[in-house]
Amino acid sequence: MSDQDKQGLSRRGFMGATATGAALLGGTGGKLGLLGGAAAITAASTSASWAATGDHATPAPGELDEYYGFWSSGQAGEMRILGVPSMRELMRVPVFNRCSATGWGQTNESLKILTQDMLPQTKEYLAAQGKKVHDQGDLHHVHMSFTEGKYDGRFLFMNDKANTRVARIRCDVMKPDKIIDIPNAKAIHGLRPQKWPRTNYVFANGEDEVPMVNDGSVLNEPEKYVNFFSAINADEMTVAWQVMVSGNLDNTDADYEGKWAFSTSYNSEMGMTLPEMMEAEMDHVVIFNIAEIEAGIAAGDYIELNGVKVIDGRKGQNKKYTRYVPIPNSPHGINMAPDKKHLCIAGKLSPTVSVLDVTKFDTLFEDDSVDAREAVLVAEPELGLGPLHTCFDGQGNAFTTLFLDSQVVKWNIEKAIRLYNGEDVDPIIVKKDVHYQPGHNSTTMGETLEADGKWYLSMNKFSKDRFLNVGPLKPENEQLFALNGDEMELVHDGPTFAEPHDSILVHRSVVNPKNVWDRNDPMWADARAQAEIDGVDIDDYQDSVIRDGNKVRVWMSSQAPEFSLSNFTVKQGDEVTVYVTNLDDIDDLTHGFTLNNHGVAMEVGPQATASVTFTAAKPGVYWYYCQWFCHALHMEMRGRMFVEPAA
Amino acid sequence: MSDQDKQGLSRRGFMGATATGAALLGGTGGKLGLLGGAAAITAASTSASWAATGDHATPAPGELDEYYGFWSSGQAGEMRILGVPSMRELMRVPVFNRCSATGWGQTNESLKILTQDMLPQTKEYLAAQGKKVHDQGDLHHVHMSFTEGKYDGRFLFMNDKANTRVARIRCDVMKPDKIIDIPNAKAIHGLRPQKWPRTNYVFANGEDEVPMVNDGSVLNEPEKYVNFFSAINADEMTVAWQVMVSGNLDNTDADYEGKWAFSTSYNSEMGMTLPEMMEAEMDHVVIFNIAEIEAGIAAGDYIELNGVKVIDGRKGQNKKYTRYVPIPNSPHGINMAPDKKHLCIAGKLSPTVSVLDVTKFDTLFEDDSVDAREAVLVAEPELGLGPLHTCFDGQGNAFTTLFLDSQVVKWNIEKAIRLYNGEDVDPIIVKKDVHYQPGHNSTTMGETLEADGKWYLSMNKFSKDRFLNVGPLKPENEQLFALNGDEMELVHDGPTFAEPHDSILVHRSVVNPKNVWDRNDPMWADARAQAEIDGVDIDDYQDSVIRDGNKVRVWMSSQAPEFSLSNFTVKQGDEVTVYVTNLDDIDDLTHGFTLNNHGVAMEVGPQATASVTFTAAKPGVYWYYCQWFCHALHMEMRGRMFVEPAA
Repeated sequence: MSDQDKQGLSRRGFMGATATGAALLGGTGGKLGLLGGAAAITAASTSASWAATGDHATPAPGELDEYYGFWSSGQAGEMRILGVPSMRELMRVPVFNRCSATGWGQTNESLKILTQDMLPQTKEYLAAQGKKVHDQGDLHHVHMSFTEGKYDGRFLFMNDKANTRVARIRCDVMKPDKIIDIPNAKAIHGLRPQKWPRTNYVFANGEDEVPMVNDGSVLNEPEKYVNFFSAINADEMTVAWQVMVSGNLDNTDADYEGKWAFSTSYNSEMGMTLPEMMEAEMDHVVIFNIAEIEAGIAAGDYIELNGVKVIDGRKGQNKKYTRYVPIPNSPHGINMAPDKKHLCIAGKLSPTVSVLDVTKFDTLFEDDSVDAREAVLVAEPELGLGPLHTCFDGQGNAFTTLFLDSQVVKWNIEKAIRLYNGEDVDPIIVKKDVHYQPGHNSTTMGETLEADGKWYLSMNKFSKDRFLNVGPLKPENEQLFALNGDEMELVHDGPTFAEPHDSILVHRSVVNPKNVWDRNDPMWADARAQAEIDGVDIDDYQDSVIRDGNKVRVWMSSQAPEFSLSNFTVKQGDEVTVYVTNLDDIDDLTHGFTLNNHGVAMEVGPQATASVTFTAAKPGVYWYYCQWFCHALHMEMRGRMFVEPAA
Repeated sequence: MSDQDKQGLSRRGFMGATATGAALLGGTGGKLGLLGGAAAITAASTSASWAATGDHATPAPGELDEYYGFWSSGQAGEMRILGVPSMRELMRVPVFNRCSATGWGQTNESLKILTQDMLPQTKEYLAAQGKKVHDQGDLHHVHMSFTEGKYDGRFLFMNDKANTRVARIRCDVMKPDKIIDIPNAKAIHGLRPQKWPRTNYVFANGEDEVPMVNDGSVLNEPEKYVNFFSAINADEMTVAWQVMVSGNLDNTDADYEGKWAFSTSYNSEMGMTLPEMMEAEMDHVVIFNIAEIEAGIAAGDYIELNGVKVIDGRKGQNKKYTRYVPIPNSPHGINMAPDKKHLCIAGKLSPTVSVLDVTKFDTLFEDDSVDAREAVLVAEPELGLGPLHTCFDGQGNAFTTLFLDSQVVKWNIEKAIRLYNGEDVDPIIVKKDVHYQPGHNSTTMGETLEADGKWYLSMNKFSKDRFLNVGPLKPENEQLFALNGDEMELVHDGPTFAEPHDSILVHRSVVNPKNVWDRNDPMWADARAQAEIDGVDIDDYQDSVIRDGNKVRVWMSSQAPEFSLSNFTVKQGDEVTVYVTNLDDIDDLTHGFTLNNHGVAMEVGPQATASVTFTAAKPGVYWYYCQWFCHALHMEMRGRMFVEPAA
């Protein structure tokens, strides 16, 4: 270790002074005194009551939002956290994407999460592309874990349509802890957690049908294609069971009694071309009988496919497990109302929403001779063109997006039922233009028993002329409306990068993240185990370089504005792992480690350990530096890796 | 081509009807009529006058911002476009990062830009990591091209500190067209375009000193370490020349006469550890004499290093080329005032800004016996703790960020000069708290002769308690102030993901991007050349699959909601290139191409061609789909790749 210098100023925590507000200018420390100068820190207001007041829905500077918005980002592959009603993006959380800033997809900790539940065939696909890990994904739906129909603030779950994955994010640190491949199914699309009694399962739809044995022997025989509905054990993040279904699967939801899950199918025809997919006037929703499926699994009524127990729930098979309810035409969104009773299914190519009464679903399974649609349909309001998704205000009203009309329609469920029953009543309360082509929508707490009807969000696919022109690729546009009685007032246009696919709006009282990492966090359990072997205490100042054959492990700590090691030496061709532990414990004091030329950069949060492995490529001097601004001497927080020629 | 089906509904452009507002509901087309239903499109206001009015600086929904903000993103590696004063993020432009949404770093068009000017040693570094292209970067500074001291709306230039690169973005399409490696220098940091007579050069600082021959033979001999200042030919994006300097280089700027460039050095000591780097009371700014350097190059007074002509401008060498002006302590930001005369250099560890008169710089080169500091220093106001960067209002005032004080100080340059000359006058106009620890700052048009002093932006490194807690990693915070006379009113807190490093605020009249790609765009010149060889007209409907040994080229067009090919067939192990041309020419109608399991996804803008190459990994059916929401039948815009077993 002769080439290592311990930096002389370690452990001083210069930044500490700015956080405590100590004014050290003059006298006490000369040059160093300047560094710890008086920080003007004014406590931000924590006022929690937001309401639109005409032209001003945005909290004033320093005032906090009342709601967390958790956003999917579609093909960007990340989760986003916004403040609502300000619509300010508070954080990007990389999940399926490769993140240049945090090193997600490069750090050993993230690679473990990305690869440990990877199927063997995924490794084959990746190997053919010269990769070990996917660096992109298509994250459509984010939903929080429930306890008794209410958000419980533990986890967020989300899908990757591109690569058939499901991820979980821990809400205490807002980082993923599990990313799993789903066998058999293709293109996980709709995803929802079980709402009652708690989120034991996460339900996930396979959108794309493929031959059951997908080995290249079956191509043009649609009758051999199947689709899979998956129930994921939410605690263990394993696939509990799957159901093979007829027709493809689009969106899904679950009831408030824990009895049912249900999924729409826009391609009940199992068509392979657009005309084939649009052929039938009626498609369907599949209802999954959870208790019967669990009983069937327990009784051994399954086949095992790629390690998963699969129930056959196709049309005409055992009707204990599934029922198919006809829905006109190419249904898309499926949303359970917080009245615990009404399920709203948007027609997409039909101008209607089909309202089913879930309390009648038992009858479908008791008597398979009944007309499934007649037995459970209680309303079918005609709302406008291109209905896609519905959300709720908790006061008996629903909001449905109209993609083609570029509108939202607010309507009353009970009036729609009365109209269906022959009364002369108009369920439509108001229609509002949105800009333009809305897809998903959200209301505050709207998919829970605590729906509060304060804010309505429209996630629109086109922004066209709503913002300064930024070239051929334009942002999408999310519009926030304040709900006041029957009024809907547009208060904010929120441009976003591809794709604001879906969101949930969660009252801030539900979410309580940590400010600083817990040193015992399992995120770096592997590093801790290795440190014990190497005799390094990763909870304290560390500056060890351990050689193990051609593997070199560099253990360093960081404390603004210094790494414990101002340099370390390796040989060309060495496989080098750098572990950095951030000893700073001050709120917001994240460090980073970027190594010149080698494409290495990672985030190291306050009190976190992170590591990255790379090969020392060529002899020479390579500087590493802290890329997360931490201190007045942040620029000086750097050191050198010496790469000696191979012996 | 027997396995290809032409989709029956191609070229109908369903979406077109929504753009023209034609109401087709009922009668005319049955089911298809519904798809083209009436879109409620309201023209957005184009009102251009924004001023803060108390509590409301944000444009109302539908009103456009007056300024484009072009933002670096630090370690996120992208450029961002914001609207100002709304502070809404309008677009992310991937540059050095791997972008899951657009396919940047994966499409052939982006890979060409990322690799075509790559140095051989970069390929070696990447090969050692099993990569062909960097998938991360650290983008610190974005600046626009100038003509006669004003933004000309042609290009944006930016640096990658992590991997020593410089990129250029075309403002007509807001995509990079050139990314170049800079030889010799390490860690390109400060970057500025020449302001006068136009941006012939982009000046770029190498921050990290390395041995001149960096082959692992020189480690602990600081005297053999050097730094390089680079002048890049902005039109050709090649390195025109470099200057070897003493001390490292931090930030840079240029004057309004085209005579000088100048760079700060925080480590004039060439120290390798923090105490060494902080040792000297005085560091320096290097002044580069452009005309003399050009003459020296022409006269052959250079050495050639890695293909670049390098002038020796180290201290004590030929003083025609450079002069070193002492500046107290560890100077950081260097900013040229739009009065064409005053250069402001922030002290960082000194509470002062050194104001140099650039019109006196000739004297330094005429007589090398003068005290360089005395000869050009005209003011040295003491402003507060941790001064980092300065910007200007065009009315003789400057705004300097105080990192340690968490403040901005507005001060008057002329008064600072009078104070320095002995008058009893206070140059400080006002100090305002910011939240917290500001780095760079910007004013509208502030780095040009058109500085208008309407808005002031503070880019702050910490947000602490200003937003809902999102875990240990917090957003940074950008605060927008309205400038009214001597008043500075805070009107917006703008949280951002790492790292809002720097920005420029450009009046919208300067920027005129296209709405739709030009079919003759050079971005896909390679695809066009290949199409001609393959006999494919890429400007029209196309559905060809060309086999060429084990290479397969799939030529397809897209028009909402269909790809021209509903399927295509390849064999396991084939190297497949999919070219997609988006025939839709409607504003905002971007398509995408995502291929299941293979980690493939790319953006295809309106009227654009994009391509991606991958290996067909395993036999079976793989769906591809449009991931950029384009139509009511977007979900149905999909097709199948059949992979047959290898023969």
